[in-house]
Amino acid sequence: MRVLGVDPGLTRCGVGVVEGVAGRPLTMLGVGVVRTPADAETGPRLVAIEQGIEHWLDEHRPGLVAVERVFSQHNVRTVMGTAQASAVAILCASRRGIPVALHTPSEVKAAVTGSGRADKAQVGAMVTRLLRLSAPPKPADAADALALAICHIWRAPAQNRLQQAVAAQRAMKGRTA
Amino acid sequence: MRVLGVDPGLTRCGVGVVEGVAGRPLTMLGVGVVRTPADAETGPRLVAIEQGIEHWLDEHRPGLVAVERVFSQHNVRTVMGTAQASAVAILCASRRGIPVALHTPSEVKAAVTGSGRADKAQVGAMVTRLLRLSAPPKPADAADALALAICHIWRAPAQNRLQQAVAAQRAMKGRTA
Repeated sequence: MRVLGVDPGLTRCGVGVVEGVAGRPLTMLGVGVVRTPADAETGPRLVAIEQGIEHWLDEHRPGLVAVERVFSQHNVRTVMGTAQASAVAILCASRRGIPVALHTPSEVKAAVTGSGRADKAQVGAMVTRLLRLSAPPKPADAADALALAICHIWRAPAQNRLQQAVAAQRAMKGRTA
Repeated sequence: MRVLGVDPGLTRCGVGVVEGVAGRPLTMLGVGVVRTPADAETGPRLVAIEQGIEHWLDEHRPGLVAVERVFSQHNVRTVMGTAQASAVAILCASRRGIPVALHTPSEVKAAVTGSGRADKAQVGAMVTRLLRLSAPPKPADAADALALAICHIWRAPAQNRLQQAVAAQRAMKGRTA
């Protein structure tokens, strides 16, 4: 399973590719940040993010793209930029028929550190350990993108089992109805 | 001046094309709604909106795209969808090098009705009158898209004059510095 994690943002959009399956050591295939100038207009910034994401999809051909689910935050302007950048990432993946999964920040933190309220340093430290890197990926957005990909790989089996259980129950109901 | 107005939304994205200049009667060239199913996943919905916007850009070749500026609202889920749909519209225009202008809902209402707090019916009635239509465009999202385009055409001269004044003042300062 090869997953591209995307930590969306207009100024810094973290991207990281992780390959592996739950229960086995994971491999990092790439990590980086798509940056756009804070003083540029939204349009050219979204175009630059699209080009950046397309490049990562071309380069790594992931089987799934995991994007941070955007929630309301205190800073409305930040949340708008985050929502817009995430829309571009979701669009790029969906246009190619690549499935998209959304995970909340607390799901990601809980997956890699055991606590949904872990801080950036803790997430960075665990990403470094889990991917056997020599140093934490910088900036934090890059580490967060890798954490998203790891979170998806580890959660996927549970989610699949849940979906299978729901499907099985529906099939049972269909038979007894 | 030919303007494509976009009232962004995931379920209903209003689109309307208006041609004209400030101070002269305006002409509606087209109006419609790009719809996506509420029960579909975000990815396919954003792809459908992209295809819809691309179709309107191909069909009408606007010189500018006016998009409603998204603000925080009470319903966080709605505002996320609106931000994502607006990102797709801005991206489609910017990718073609078409300038994008953002106007707030109250700017649009004030432009077409004289009041920034006008209701939907009032906006619909004024759009109908200003474009000499036989009936208000339905749904409201379509009328709002036309109102956005009208707002831009009417505000543009003032904005240009303002920009020219700022530029002239900067040039003056440069000379006296």
